Amino acid sequence: MALESDDIFNRAIATLTRGGPHRVWSLIVTVFGDLAQGEGQDIAGPTLSRILAPMGVKAEAQRVALHRLRKDDWIDSRRDGRFSRHFLTAKGRAASAAAARRIYAAEPSSSPERWHLALAGPEPDQALSDLAKTGAAIAVDGRMLLGPGRAPAAAYGLKDALVLEADALSDPPEWLQAAFCPPDLVAAYGDLAAQLAELDSLTETWPAPGPDPLETAALRVLIVHDWRRLVLRRPDLPPNFFPAAAPIAACRAHVARLLARFPRPDLAAIG
Amino acid sequence: MALESDDIFNRAIATLTRGGPHRVWSLIVTVFGDLAQGEGQDIAGPTLSRILAPMGVKAEAQRVALHRLRKDDWIDSRRDGRFSRHFLTAKGRAASAAAARRIYAAEPSSSPERWHLALAGPEPDQALSDLAKTGAAIAVDGRMLLGPGRAPAAAYGLKDALVLEADALSDPPEWLQAAFCPPDLVAAYGDLAAQLAELDSLTETWPAPGPDPLETAALRVLIVHDWRRLVLRRPDLPPNFFPAAAPIAACRAHVARLLARFPRPDLAAIG
Repeated sequence: MALESDDIFNRAIATLTRGGPHRVWSLIVTVFGDLAQGEGQDIAGPTLSRILAPMGVKAEAQRVALHRLRKDDWIDSRRDGRFSRHFLTAKGRAASAAAARRIYAAEPSSSPERWHLALAGPEPDQALSDLAKTGAAIAVDGRMLLGPGRAPAAAYGLKDALVLEADALSDPPEWLQAAFCPPDLVAAYGDLAAQLAELDSLTETWPAPGPDPLETAALRVLIVHDWRRLVLRRPDLPPNFFPAAAPIAACRAHVARLLARFPRPDLAAIG
Repeated sequence: MALESDDIFNRAIATLTRGGPHRVWSLIVTVFGDLAQGEGQDIAGPTLSRILAPMGVKAEAQRVALHRLRKDDWIDSRRDGRFSRHFLTAKGRAASAAAARRIYAAEPSSSPERWHLALAGPEPDQALSDLAKTGAAIAVDGRMLLGPGRAPAAAYGLKDALVLEADALSDPPEWLQAAFCPPDLVAAYGDLAAQLAELDSLTETWPAPGPDPLETAALRVLIVHDWRRLVLRRPDLPPNFFPAAAPIAACRAHVARLLARFPRPDLAAIG
């Protein structure tokens, strides 16, 4: 027996949230990044609640998350009669636009023309460990950061570092791929590829009336969210930096096909 | 009372050999590199003996060293009546010419336009330790080689290395200077600077008849030898790679002044 529209939607949400609950502030970042990134675009509080409801987000959690995002100068809000309208700040728009270039890219990056490498002194440098967590560069080992593009002017503030700018790089050996994308990240890409493949089969035919604008919005947000959480975790480097076992190309292809299947809805239609 | 010519020569030799006896084969490499580097130039066995005698080299030691150098394809010999004539092979000439560019350079190297860096995998790589000993590149730590110029085609034969070519490099921090030129090498430069300063004062005025061609040859050989043993121990890198405490510029200036004071003698005059 064919699934009904509601069943498809519910199963799709279950598939996309299988990895555990998402942090609400992070989901909201995705909502705005995907649905209201442009200057002048905003989302009414009740609309945001409707998009987040299928993911199990309650009103109180939404309120706390919005408070945090306002404090971080990511989101701003204004009253509009009985409710608020929320919108990205200039900082939030700029960061969302930068992320969008990677999230929605049809192809993976080609190799950068320049690289930079910072080698810290033999004393452990906390700045280096902190930096590796930001994803701006790869921590090749406890002393060395390798990243695409020119070296930052202040060399990340590393004291006593040797800083090189390279214009040629050999194919990354396996130990570097593993340092860059360790087994837990390979496994996470594997999980995502499986989720997206399921979603792809599940939503390939969607009986009339098809997904409504709210359902479409919720599905897009979760697809983009699950993908961006992985793809932005590392600097923008070409496929040969990743272990062959990480199905990144498959994930990217699924994301592109699914986002084309669920085009951005008109927010006004969500009400 | 002023020193006589013989005293000056004997004291000069004592000053230059204060660091202990030199290896005979290595002295012979210097003799040919300084006095008979050109194609077609040779040194008769007895002439070589006379040049080496003030350094305490006996006939048997000279014979053994020449045997070794012939085996290494550095020196070749031919009979000429009652004695042999020795000369550099093509390989010996090429290596001597390459070394001469650094030994006799009036100025230290400027920074290379390109650098290469090879980073071995986390497993210890014997090839890397071996390479560091050759002086072709610096072992920055147990995993990384940094050298001037392009990366060797086979990346030194390092397995699983990441190889970069850099066209910009920051000023080397102190820990890198110390890795490149450790305290024992700094101390050796200090000793050489002191020896050359003494030699400079000692030979500034040399009573008639002045040094004869044999004395001149012996002094040149020892000056060049003591200098090249240090200057060739590291890759050809600019002064900012060395600790400020290493008096390399002073050594270079002394060497230039002393070699100008003792110009290359006519080997035929040594007889």
